Amino acid sequence: MSRATGAATARSAPASPGVATVEIRSSGPVPEGLVEAFEEYERALRADDVDTLDAVFAAGPHTLRGDGTTLLVGHDQIAAFRRGRDGAPSRRAVVLEVRPLADDAVLVAAVTTDAGTRAHGLQTQLWQRREDRWVVTAAHVTQPARPPAVDGSIWRKVGTPLVEPAGSGVLDGLTVAVKDVLAVAGERMGLGNPTWLADQEPEARSAPAVQQLLAAGAAITGIARTDEFAYSLAGQNRHYGTPPNPAAPGCLSGGSTSGPAAAVALGQVDIGLGTDTAGSLRVPASYQGLVGVRTSHGAISVEGVHPLAPSFDTVGWLTRDVDVAARVADVLLAHRPNVAPGSRTAVIPALRGWINAELDTRVTAALAELTGAGVLAPVEDADLAHDEITAWARAFRVLQAFEVWQGQGGWARDHPGAFGPDVGGRFAFAATVTADQADTARETVRDARERLRRLLADTVLVLPASSGPAPSLHAGKDIVEDERTATVRLTQLASLAGAPAVALPVLWMSDGRPVGLCLVGAPDTDRALLALGRTVTEALAAAAASR
Amino acid sequence: MSRATGAATARSAPASPGVATVEIRSSGPVPEGLVEAFEEYERALRADDVDTLDAVFAAGPHTLRGDGTTLLVGHDQIAAFRRGRDGAPSRRAVVLEVRPLADDAVLVAAVTTDAGTRAHGLQTQLWQRREDRWVVTAAHVTQPARPPAVDGSIWRKVGTPLVEPAGSGVLDGLTVAVKDVLAVAGERMGLGNPTWLADQEPEARSAPAVQQLLAAGAAITGIARTDEFAYSLAGQNRHYGTPPNPAAPGCLSGGSTSGPAAAVALGQVDIGLGTDTAGSLRVPASYQGLVGVRTSHGAISVEGVHPLAPSFDTVGWLTRDVDVAARVADVLLAHRPNVAPGSRTAVIPALRGWINAELDTRVTAALAELTGAGVLAPVEDADLAHDEITAWARAFRVLQAFEVWQGQGGWARDHPGAFGPDVGGRFAFAATVTADQADTARETVRDARERLRRLLADTVLVLPASSGPAPSLHAGKDIVEDERTATVRLTQLASLAGAPAVALPVLWMSDGRPVGLCLVGAPDTDRALLALGRTVTEALAAAAASR
Repeated sequence: MSRATGAATARSAPASPGVATVEIRSSGPVPEGLVEAFEEYERALRADDVDTLDAVFAAGPHTLRGDGTTLLVGHDQIAAFRRGRDGAPSRRAVVLEVRPLADDAVLVAAVTTDAGTRAHGLQTQLWQRREDRWVVTAAHVTQPARPPAVDGSIWRKVGTPLVEPAGSGVLDGLTVAVKDVLAVAGERMGLGNPTWLADQEPEARSAPAVQQLLAAGAAITGIARTDEFAYSLAGQNRHYGTPPNPAAPGCLSGGSTSGPAAAVALGQVDIGLGTDTAGSLRVPASYQGLVGVRTSHGAISVEGVHPLAPSFDTVGWLTRDVDVAARVADVLLAHRPNVAPGSRTAVIPALRGWINAELDTRVTAALAELTGAGVLAPVEDADLAHDEITAWARAFRVLQAFEVWQGQGGWARDHPGAFGPDVGGRFAFAATVTADQADTARETVRDARERLRRLLADTVLVLPASSGPAPSLHAGKDIVEDERTATVRLTQLASLAGAPAVALPVLWMSDGRPVGLCLVGAPDTDRALLALGRTVTEALAAAAASR
Repeated sequence: MSRATGAATARSAPASPGVATVEIRSSGPVPEGLVEAFEEYERALRADDVDTLDAVFAAGPHTLRGDGTTLLVGHDQIAAFRRGRDGAPSRRAVVLEVRPLADDAVLVAAVTTDAGTRAHGLQTQLWQRREDRWVVTAAHVTQPARPPAVDGSIWRKVGTPLVEPAGSGVLDGLTVAVKDVLAVAGERMGLGNPTWLADQEPEARSAPAVQQLLAAGAAITGIARTDEFAYSLAGQNRHYGTPPNPAAPGCLSGGSTSGPAAAVALGQVDIGLGTDTAGSLRVPASYQGLVGVRTSHGAISVEGVHPLAPSFDTVGWLTRDVDVAARVADVLLAHRPNVAPGSRTAVIPALRGWINAELDTRVTAALAELTGAGVLAPVEDADLAHDEITAWARAFRVLQAFEVWQGQGGWARDHPGAFGPDVGGRFAFAATVTADQADTARETVRDARERLRRLLADTVLVLPASSGPAPSLHAGKDIVEDERTATVRLTQLASLAGAPAVALPVLWMSDGRPVGLCLVGAPDTDRALLALGRTVTEALAAAAASR
């Protein structure tokens, strides 16, 4: 490494990428030992020498390390991050700008390049002398970018666009991610499973919902990921990875409409077209701070949509914005009656045991704002019992599994080991459900549907769209499964009733993670619920602004 | 904005995204006026108030502003960047970590969110008090990420992969970007022009080179951008934008194999398959620090390759690594004789006037290393005259244009205005070339070919792969055109000779921009040239490491 100390804006010989020289430029004398400390750090980084890296970062609760996605605060968080990281980046510093601030404080900005691509990165570090040792008290890292051609955790196939609009209308200029369980003419349908995909032929025609979006002016950007066969709510796909959750970095995306959700949340498309059987639109909407629409059962054709459990399967969509969601409803539900939702508002106290405690207070607070503002009628308690809901959940799970096995069991049997462990486990359970068990479950489901439809006839049901915020990617399997179980207690209600449900991104936990507030109405109140959703969103934003 | 001053690690109420509150946490008393200065800066940023932003950044040559891609040094560079920027980002700070360093110096790390997607960003700023005003003396910005589904300047269509391998072989595990002038079965061929694309049907079969790569184990990641009809060397496409040049940020990518080049340089694929008529592989290779291979004329079938000027059209490829380039040659040239290149080494002093002066010294220095190491024979001067080369260039341009018009003129005539101005201008010239002019040019080309083949029979010709490094994106049209003219003086030699040429990423300008060193050999020395290229690369790396 060449040196330039003392002179203002000194320049060493030019550095060639790939050669281990660093050009050092300083605005003044470089304090003793600083460059050596920097070099030691870079060496430790390349060697992924975690102990040395830990020692270079200052001890205590005030040390900062940020990379754009996450700002870590305190040595403990930073050390934990390093231990959890899968190897260190292969970067090399090529230019070092040194700004001495005092005898014991220096700001360093280092231009780095990736060893493979030579792409540029930048790290800014504040070095401070503590007891005669130079340590980093704050660092901001931009690793040299290696963007993939396409994020395979979000997308299977992408074009600019993949499919041009077929007409012009209220969706002109908008773009769509299609969940890989809906047919797109000329493209295969992958169901989130490579074994399935390998045997497919291109679809002859697009699903009606796809056709209608194209006819209304939307373009299809691509075909996006799904949990395998749409039979999960987590968003983790063993084969293709877990899409990012930009609203809660480091947390699950939610599924099974996982790819479209991430694509919408990242602003890559305006509309995510998907399906919802047990919450596959509402859960990713909730986890990622999106509007999620589950439509009335039967309102949108499931032709060209791969079935999961036909008694509950629906087509719906995700957007960032409630207005865009309403425009999609105007297109896809134009042929349906536009029924007004009930004038009463209800919550179900018996659900409370399955709802995150902080979230529960946020729902209560939001409802207080909304009733106070006259947006919703005073909240009543629906008298559903805890045991009843549990029984419904059992029946829902059994009937869903039975229908899954009726439709997909043959393929699953013929392709052992094709699924990842979680979906595979669900299929293993599905294989065990008997016709008798299904008949019993079907009766319970029928009762539940009648019960819920009576309630919804004059009432809008309000509940969180998931039991809590998105669990951490590092949460244990048990926690993820518990969250799923608790969430289905909530999401099953609209599924059982065949009712529309709109998840609204209006609740946030104290750590910033979003949770959806879900409105459930009687069948064919879909569009009216979205109109109400807009009013709810505006009222809560106004209330927050005035606080 | 809420405040928390004085207390260590004070926390204000949690902030909800979308609401204009900021949570301030500090390791100690926050100096007076600092938060106000930060607020003023953020307000100015949102309003894109360039004057205020200029005033917030400290005057003088030492102020830093980096974003990972580029580190700007000095107030002048920063101010120029702001004036050139197309509007300011729509971000909002949500968490502010304050680290007072002294009475007059504070480090601030601000977590920001994008107004649309709520994606997180980070900005780290060093604030210093200068004459009672707080100013920023260093800033590192990571804007909230809004990665597109696909970078449409690089790609037209992408899959994971788009086309699976059809066999297994030496290219197992490698991925390919196919320039949008080569047929891929089932996909349309777009030629970098949307008017053309709109009329196309999917291709029935892939070009032989595409088939051979798939058979050897490579997967096709996608179809990548080209300059319109491949009739340019700049890499600027009026319809789809200019791909990034990661090796020289802010500079042209080079073309016409522009998309594959950027995809390879970014590490998105291993191989860029393209074409080279007048330098369309060698120029992007040179500008982006890649290996670029133009093959012997006629060595690779042009079936399924859209023609530009058949007398000079060749298929070739780009890689980051000379070994991978050699493996591709083993696949695509397996049916050709593997001729040894000449044992003599020559340069053409008459080219010097068209070569950037610093580059010329770098070529000379590299040749001194290579001859000193015994990798190349002592350098001889080839006695081509300046006027001769100019005359060849004129003939090359005329014959190329004539052939372009013969092949594409009908379509161009039927679609007025379909091309961007630069390619359109070239077509306008092509329309004026008469058959007599073409006949005369053909004679000159024939003479040049004979002359060059005599030289190459026992000699490897060494010259830069372009006249200089990649011009700035902001370089005037005249500069870009001058660089093109000068570059074609160099690149035409292999084109005229129908000879193979290998561009090697071994030269760097003092500002870090790469330039390729080009080896030209007799026909069918392609594979041997790549072997020589590997030796050259290793020898120059060893020489650099020992300096």
